[in-house]
Amino acid sequence: MEYRKIKDQDDVGDDIENRGGKALPGVSVSNVANFGGISSERSKWKRKSIVTLALTILTSSQAILIVWSKRAGKYEYSVTTANFSVEALKCALSLAALLRIWRREGVTEDNRLSTTLDEVSVYPIPAALYLVKNLLQYYIFAYVDAPGYQILKNLNIISTGVLYRIILKKKLSEIQWAGFILLCAGCTTAQLNSSSDRVLQTPVQGWVMAIVMALLSGFAGVYTEAIIKKRPSRNINVQNFWLYVFGMGFNAIAILVQDFDAVVNKGFFHGYSLITILMILNHALSGIAVSMVMKYADNIVKVYSTSVAMLLTAVVSVFLFGFHLSLAFFLGSTIVSVSVYLHAIGKVQR
Amino acid sequence: MEYRKIKDQDDVGDDIENRGGKALPGVSVSNVANFGGISSERSKWKRKSIVTLALTILTSSQAILIVWSKRAGKYEYSVTTANFSVEALKCALSLAALLRIWRREGVTEDNRLSTTLDEVSVYPIPAALYLVKNLLQYYIFAYVDAPGYQILKNLNIISTGVLYRIILKKKLSEIQWAGFILLCAGCTTAQLNSSSDRVLQTPVQGWVMAIVMALLSGFAGVYTEAIIKKRPSRNINVQNFWLYVFGMGFNAIAILVQDFDAVVNKGFFHGYSLITILMILNHALSGIAVSMVMKYADNIVKVYSTSVAMLLTAVVSVFLFGFHLSLAFFLGSTIVSVSVYLHAIGKVQR
Repeated sequence: MEYRKIKDQDDVGDDIENRGGKALPGVSVSNVANFGGISSERSKWKRKSIVTLALTILTSSQAILIVWSKRAGKYEYSVTTANFSVEALKCALSLAALLRIWRREGVTEDNRLSTTLDEVSVYPIPAALYLVKNLLQYYIFAYVDAPGYQILKNLNIISTGVLYRIILKKKLSEIQWAGFILLCAGCTTAQLNSSSDRVLQTPVQGWVMAIVMALLSGFAGVYTEAIIKKRPSRNINVQNFWLYVFGMGFNAIAILVQDFDAVVNKGFFHGYSLITILMILNHALSGIAVSMVMKYADNIVKVYSTSVAMLLTAVVSVFLFGFHLSLAFFLGSTIVSVSVYLHAIGKVQR
Repeated sequence: MEYRKIKDQDDVGDDIENRGGKALPGVSVSNVANFGGISSERSKWKRKSIVTLALTILTSSQAILIVWSKRAGKYEYSVTTANFSVEALKCALSLAALLRIWRREGVTEDNRLSTTLDEVSVYPIPAALYLVKNLLQYYIFAYVDAPGYQILKNLNIISTGVLYRIILKKKLSEIQWAGFILLCAGCTTAQLNSSSDRVLQTPVQGWVMAIVMALLSGFAGVYTEAIIKKRPSRNINVQNFWLYVFGMGFNAIAILVQDFDAVVNKGFFHGYSLITILMILNHALSGIAVSMVMKYADNIVKVYSTSVAMLLTAVVSVFLFGFHLSLAFFLGSTIVSVSVYLHAIGKVQR
C-alpha cells in the first residue's frame, strides 16, 4: 500500500519540532548551526499557528456566510457550478503563488509544475473519495433528517483519529485520545436541541451510511495529508495545483450529470449574487488553508480547528443574527475547551 | 483555624498508598516487616474500593427507591421524622458495631466512646451547615424550578473540588482538575432535557443562592473529612456516633419547628410504609458509607462515586421503569467515563 511508504519522510518533516530541529532533506542548512535549530523550530511553530488560525477564522466565517445566504433567500445558483468555481479559483490562486515563487527563486526541482506519473497518480484519490461521500449524502437523508445528519457528522472526528493512527501510523498519547473522544462528545453536546433525540431512532441503514461517510471523509483527509507529506520538500502550491486540477475534473463530471441542462439554458453563472461570490472566495481560501494545515500540521489540528470554528460561529451568530445560546452549547464549549487543553498537555507528556 | 491542623496527620493517614506503606501511628507494625508495606497498601486499596463501591450502589438504589415511592403515590409520612429516623438508625448501627469491637478487642484509647470537648466541639458543624443548606433549599424554589435546581446542584462538584483544595490543602494534578470540570459538565449534560434551557434565565438571586448552597454543601463535606481524618487512628464508629448524635439533635429541632402538631396528633410513624422503611434503611447505610469514604478515601472519590451512581440509576431505571435514555445522557455518560479515566491516570503522573 503506497501511502504507508510516506511514514519515514513524514516523521522527518512533521515531527521536526520534537527532535530539536533537524533540517529537512533538500532544505538549506546554512542557519542550523547554533541557534538555527531553535529558530527553525520557532518559525515552524509560527507557520503552523498562522495556518491553523486562518483555517479556524475561514471555517467559522464560512458557516456565517451560509446562514446569511439562507436568510437572503433560497439558493438560486447551481451548487455544482459553485463547487467547480471553488476548485478553479484554488487552482488559479496556487498558480499565482507559484508564478511569484518562480520569479523570486527560479524554477527548481521542488517548485516545478511538471510532475511524474508516480507523483501525480495518487492525487485523484481524495477528490474521488469526496465525490463518493457527496453522492452518499443524497441517500442518507432517506433515513436521517438534516439536524440528525449534523449530529452524525461528528463521527468524522472519531474516524479521522482512528484512520490517522492506522494509516499515518502516528501516535496520540492516552490523554490526547481522551481529548479526542471529548472533542466528539463536546461538539455533539453543543449542537443538541429538543429534536436531537430523534437521531437515536436512526435505522441501521442510516447508521451504516453515516459510518461509511465518516470513514470516507476521514480517509480522504488522512490520504491528502499522506500525499502532501510524502514529499516534504515539494512546494505546497504545486501539490495543491494537482489536487485541485482533479477536484475541477470531478466537479465537471458532477455538472454534466446533474446540472447540464440548467447550465446550457441559463448559463454557468446564473443566479450568482455578491454573497455567492463571497462564499466561493471563502471556500477557496478555506480549502487552501486545509492543505496548508495538512502540510505544516496534521489532520488532528484540522479537526480541532474546524470544531473550534463551529463554536466561534455560534458565538458570532449571537451578535450578528440574535441567536440564543443554549445550556447544551455552554456545556459543549466547556468540554471542547478542556479537550483542546488535554490535546496540548498530552503532547508534552508523551 | 482548627481544621488546618489536620493537614499533617492527614497526609500520614490518607496518602499512605503513595509513600510505600508507612504504618499509621498507633497501628500495630508487626506485619510491616518484609512485604507488610505492600500488603498493607493493598488492603487499604481494597478497603477504599469496597466502601466506594458500597456508596455507589447505595446511592443509585436510593434514587431508584425515590422513583418507586413516587410511583406508589404521594409521601404520606413527615419528611422530618424520616430524617430523624435515619440519624437514629445510623447512631444505633455505629453503637452495634462498637459493641462487637469492644467485645473482640476490649475498650482502647481509640475505640472508647467517651470523648473530650476538644474532640467533640467540631462535630455539630457539618450538621449545622446541612441544616442551613436545607433551609435555603425552600427559598431557592422561588427563583428556580425543580429540574433547574437539579442542574444547579452540579455546582456542588466544583465547590467540593475548590474547597478540598483550599481547606484540606490537597493537590489535584492538572489532568485531575480537567477531569473534575468534565465531571460537572458531563453530569449536567446527562441531565439535559427540553426544559433545561430555562435555568439560564435564573435571576441573580437564584444564582447566588445556588452558589451559596453549593459552597455550604461542599464545605460540610470537606469539613466532615477534616474532622474524621484529624484523628486517623480513632475508630470510625466512634466518630460516626458523635456526628450522628448531632444529626439527631438538629433533626429533632426540625421536627419541633415544622411537624410538631402532626407528630403529636397522628403519631411519629404515621404514614410509614414498607418503602418508607426501605428508604430510611438505605439512607442510613448510604450515610455510613459516606463517612467510610471520607475516612478511607476522600471527598473527590465521594463526588465521583455519587456521580457514577446517578448514571447507574438512569440505566437501571430503563429496565425497571421503562425510562428512555436521551442522546444527552449517552454524551454525558461518555464525558463522565472519560473524567473517571483522567482522574485515575492523572494520579499516576503527578
